[in-house]
Amino acid sequence: MKVTLIGAGPGDPELITLKGIKALKSADVVLHDALASTELLEYCKPDCVIVNVGKRFAQHSCNQDVINHLIVEYAQQYGHVVRLKGGDSFIFGRGYEELEYAERHGITVEVVPGISSSYAVPALAGIPLTTRGMSESFWVITGTTKDHSLSNDLSLAARSSATVVVLMGMHKLPEIVETFAQLGKINLPVAIIQNGSRPDEKIVTGKVGNILQLAQAEGIGSPAIIVIGKVAQLADKVKEISQLADY
Amino acid sequence: MKVTLIGAGPGDPELITLKGIKALKSADVVLHDALASTELLEYCKPDCVIVNVGKRFAQHSCNQDVINHLIVEYAQQYGHVVRLKGGDSFIFGRGYEELEYAERHGITVEVVPGISSSYAVPALAGIPLTTRGMSESFWVITGTTKDHSLSNDLSLAARSSATVVVLMGMHKLPEIVETFAQLGKINLPVAIIQNGSRPDEKIVTGKVGNILQLAQAEGIGSPAIIVIGKVAQLADKVKEISQLADY
Repeated sequence: MKVTLIGAGPGDPELITLKGIKALKSADVVLHDALASTELLEYCKPDCVIVNVGKRFAQHSCNQDVINHLIVEYAQQYGHVVRLKGGDSFIFGRGYEELEYAERHGITVEVVPGISSSYAVPALAGIPLTTRGMSESFWVITGTTKDHSLSNDLSLAARSSATVVVLMGMHKLPEIVETFAQLGKINLPVAIIQNGSRPDEKIVTGKVGNILQLAQAEGIGSPAIIVIGKVAQLADKVKEISQLADY
Repeated sequence: MKVTLIGAGPGDPELITLKGIKALKSADVVLHDALASTELLEYCKPDCVIVNVGKRFAQHSCNQDVINHLIVEYAQQYGHVVRLKGGDSFIFGRGYEELEYAERHGITVEVVPGISSSYAVPALAGIPLTTRGMSESFWVITGTTKDHSLSNDLSLAARSSATVVVLMGMHKLPEIVETFAQLGKINLPVAIIQNGSRPDEKIVTGKVGNILQLAQAEGIGSPAIIVIGKVAQLADKVKEISQLADY
């Protein structure tokens, strides 16, 4: 009786770890998000019970409670439950809540880290979150906090030289941009990547002063990752590279 | 003629991605760090040229220049060069400098993200960098900047509610702790993880007010990851879990 929390990575099914694949192969039950690539489910045993908890329960407010309950129930009934989530389970993934709940019910939990979209999506769009002479730290923040307000930390982040990465923040874009603009940082580069690492990926790059208009003009919407900082200007460059690449 | 920058993950050879393994299998040359697990080299073709650029050049001040040069030279001579680095190439990995240099020499570069130690080492020690009600953002910073000073950003980070992760910062631990103490945060939890995810991993947990003494008493040294924030108190809890676990 055990649960393995697996981060599936940012979308590309080859960006899961070997350890993640091994756990999927031994799973009796897989509870997966809508986010995780369904190709990954091909690693499962033929008799593995596969449940999409992302789509099915998305509208319910009891969402997380239901998932917690299912994890424990399936573990008790079948043995080895894999909880497969997009990105990494512990970066805004609510994975820790699942771990705590399962533990309280006497179930052993193993964690298999996944590639977090917070840096991998920018990287695949050509943006390193850190690079010498341009950025020596990065701050990852969510636009969707428990109480639906923008975190107060953003104003501290905006004053720093850190690369600021906002996940799930498109609905707060005007407020985010305003926070930087008030500090006079209207020329600070910004990149927004929608559907990162997927075939329908869209990128828009600009500056604090014009990104709002550019994003609207390009029709960029959620889910998207917002990168604010000098490194964001590197995005365009690498679009060229991927056009040159033969793979 | 191409270069693939691969992040090998935090140490455990099963925490590399499937895409990383595929690239290793097709490499004509692998240039790897001392950090990357040598078990990963077993994926290479029998005639693959394998060069440890971590150990061999570690003392030289021209280190990065030599590596950049070797990447280009090997790509021109052999075809497909894999540059295998610990963690992720773009998180304090100087991978972007290698990408830029190779590009300037007309070589196509592909990036395969790796699991960054910045969150995976804490996760494997039981610490989620974010979890509802405790932390809604995280800030990753290096203790070893280009000019050898502690980043000014740390004082902003210390004022925030973010989980602060300091990589390569053990030699600055007194200054780091002092930055938080000056804000009256002497009871903020701190965890230090040395040799994360390796068999010789050591963890010490405490608070801003006593972590310096505790780390000294436990003989904790580099390489280590320092986690400062409420989530750091969760570390102990999971030590129990791994004792219970049967795998």
